[in-house]
Amino acid sequence: MSLAAVLARLDADRVDALDRLMELLRIPSISTDPQFKGDCATAADWLVADLTSIGFDASRRATPGHPMVVAHGGEGGPHLLFYGHYDVQPVDPIELWDRPPFEPALEDGPDGRLIRGRGTSDDKGQLMTFVEAMRAWVAETGALPCRITILLEGEEESGSPSLVPFLQENADELRADVAMICDTGMFEGRVPAITTMLRGLVAEEVVLKAASRDLHSGMYGGLAQNPIHLLVKILDDLHDETGRVTLAGFYDGVPELADEIRAQWQALAFDHARFLGDVGLSEPYGEPDRTPLEKLWSRPTAEVNGISGGYTGKGFKTVLPAEARAKVSFRLVGSQDPEAVHEAFVQHVEARLPADVRAEFPLGHGAPASRMPTDDPAFETARKALGEEWGMEAAFIGSGGSIPIAGHFQDILGMDSMLIGFARDDDAIHSPNEKYDLRSFSKGARSWARILAALSGKG
Amino acid sequence: MSLAAVLARLDADRVDALDRLMELLRIPSISTDPQFKGDCATAADWLVADLTSIGFDASRRATPGHPMVVAHGGEGGPHLLFYGHYDVQPVDPIELWDRPPFEPALEDGPDGRLIRGRGTSDDKGQLMTFVEAMRAWVAETGALPCRITILLEGEEESGSPSLVPFLQENADELRADVAMICDTGMFEGRVPAITTMLRGLVAEEVVLKAASRDLHSGMYGGLAQNPIHLLVKILDDLHDETGRVTLAGFYDGVPELADEIRAQWQALAFDHARFLGDVGLSEPYGEPDRTPLEKLWSRPTAEVNGISGGYTGKGFKTVLPAEARAKVSFRLVGSQDPEAVHEAFVQHVEARLPADVRAEFPLGHGAPASRMPTDDPAFETARKALGEEWGMEAAFIGSGGSIPIAGHFQDILGMDSMLIGFARDDDAIHSPNEKYDLRSFSKGARSWARILAALSGKG
Repeated sequence: MSLAAVLARLDADRVDALDRLMELLRIPSISTDPQFKGDCATAADWLVADLTSIGFDASRRATPGHPMVVAHGGEGGPHLLFYGHYDVQPVDPIELWDRPPFEPALEDGPDGRLIRGRGTSDDKGQLMTFVEAMRAWVAETGALPCRITILLEGEEESGSPSLVPFLQENADELRADVAMICDTGMFEGRVPAITTMLRGLVAEEVVLKAASRDLHSGMYGGLAQNPIHLLVKILDDLHDETGRVTLAGFYDGVPELADEIRAQWQALAFDHARFLGDVGLSEPYGEPDRTPLEKLWSRPTAEVNGISGGYTGKGFKTVLPAEARAKVSFRLVGSQDPEAVHEAFVQHVEARLPADVRAEFPLGHGAPASRMPTDDPAFETARKALGEEWGMEAAFIGSGGSIPIAGHFQDILGMDSMLIGFARDDDAIHSPNEKYDLRSFSKGARSWARILAALSGKG
Repeated sequence: MSLAAVLARLDADRVDALDRLMELLRIPSISTDPQFKGDCATAADWLVADLTSIGFDASRRATPGHPMVVAHGGEGGPHLLFYGHYDVQPVDPIELWDRPPFEPALEDGPDGRLIRGRGTSDDKGQLMTFVEAMRAWVAETGALPCRITILLEGEEESGSPSLVPFLQENADELRADVAMICDTGMFEGRVPAITTMLRGLVAEEVVLKAASRDLHSGMYGGLAQNPIHLLVKILDDLHDETGRVTLAGFYDGVPELADEIRAQWQALAFDHARFLGDVGLSEPYGEPDRTPLEKLWSRPTAEVNGISGGYTGKGFKTVLPAEARAKVSFRLVGSQDPEAVHEAFVQHVEARLPADVRAEFPLGHGAPASRMPTDDPAFETARKALGEEWGMEAAFIGSGGSIPIAGHFQDILGMDSMLIGFARDDDAIHSPNEKYDLRSFSKGARSWARILAALSGKG
């Protein structure tokens, strides 16, 4: 039985697998900052070389932004498309890191050994679980278990501007029976899970401009427009007193939770007190009549992710600034339309503009929410295989985050996605001191070996 | 008649006076930047030497920060205390200067010749108008017209940390009948003016802290507190819909404008359209039932001078930040109590804090508004003398800015101040390419000669 041998080889190869991951982690592939453009290309090249060494026909494919990595291998069985991303989030505030973010190292954590560094969990550590599973499979059996296409993106953390055109231009090459996406987590860090509901995302930036230059608040204060005042009004008006979002038509397409999903989620016995307690909080925020899991997985939100204006250095400067700006994101559910939400936000701002203040919207991209067909037998097969590795039943869960790729696979390639990942809530993705448990890395690779075996009928 | 001779001597001595000012301007006495500490001492020494050469008993006086210059001279008549400051603002952004800021030069401007360089208007050019007037007086008559004390500060541009203790420790030495402060401007750059109303200032910083670290808005959004949301609510709630400040008791001590002052201000025919138009604005902001000059000079304000939180770099980061902060200033009028305003602001914030968010107030200092007794005959005498130099009636005006020294002279030395200066709104103080009109410099010196003559009865 080949699966047992593949699993044994994964166990035997753990030290080398970790060395490979460390190499990839050392490349500071921050996609949102132009100064790391060369590093993104380096990360792509590293992956092309590594996949080639396994036997894939791998290549770096140019886009107007950072390159894609595409690889093909194997024959027969179901055709699987594997997706991951090699780019990472910026590292600021850098002073809160306990070690240099791109000099990863093993540490002891409360739940065992872990790998510390930017990208360990999101998403280099996760994508390498799949690569290691395939490496072991080829090494042990001489071939991949079925036909596999790999797509690794370098712009996931900066809005994926090249992704849709790339999928459109290469649809025939990339289309498979089902996609496997490794960018999600375990439920409460302990229950293996396939994420089948994802919130969508609309990201906006608004810049308010008033006077032609910064003014002295003593000379002009009380008579001249202060764009910060208007900005805080616009942002404060985004929610009503019950925590609902006030944009016109915002709740169009937001479904109520189906009874069977509500029942499944209740069975998960989500410990929201611990979830919040881990980050120093105690009380659920937002709509009072919704359960915590509903708020996270099936309710839409509006969040201000960044705000700036005027003097923000040490001490005090009585400036009345010429401009103020904010970054705002909306999480979408059901069939909420990103374009309609964008339009409603622009209207929300413009309806509040007095004379002498104008608004600019330099950013604005979005993706709708996604929902996977859990009644497709392949989903059940994968869920069973996943449960066998972890010794407990795996769950179908929702996710508060947005993985727009799953929606694009549905829209452009007509293909559903299995979102399977091994991250934990305490991995601090997007934050200082990001980490990935060694257990997630090694059992993740073993999980993929099992899922590949089950789906290809070679278990 | 000695005044005519003094004025003639000032005219004859213009080239040498300009050379002296240029020497002082070349000393980069930036008080806020420790690397210019030696230059501040050099500027103080230069002034001690110059005042000594006129016949003053002048000395450099140590403080925990930059030194004070104190000088005594003359006998009889009213005892006048003259105040100015020899320190200057930093020069950044240096790339916006058309010439090196500490290599001053004469240029042609739209309204005649001007002196370009840091400190020309704020405050070296202004303080030298007084010194030149006294030099001419001594040269022509052999003595000062009355008893004069001079106090020149080196920390005005960095919050004057040593000033209050110095005034307290040297109160008996410094107390005079009235203070003359040369750090203000002409009304609309054309009408000679004595500033008799100054707004006070309370400066606050508020920091809101929620989660123990930055969170991913996909993972936590909708369930965890976002301190930016609370901050924009707190700041938006500072004003009601009519532009009034909502802090409890904020308008306690805010007087209505006396009819005769209202009439004086109306006579000034303030061109608010041009004032706002010069900075790209068109419509007066704020309380709709107040005139523009009332808003600037006699109404209190709340202004957000700076705000920051979350991700503010390029691109987008879906962070739910651990903290958010703002700098807020209140301009005070009448007898508003800075301490009461501070307390009301703290209460305004704390009343809005939900569970899981706490507020810190790392900053908070204030000074009350000042109002000078324009019914004191000395003020009318000075106003008349000033008008004679400029060939038009001089005005008693207000100022939206805060000059805390005037309040300290009242509180600590029990002495009122005449705020007389010759700066223009387009002097770009605190900004690149600061300038001072040659006309302000020469007619400023002549103005002081006339005021000294009138107050000492030697006109």
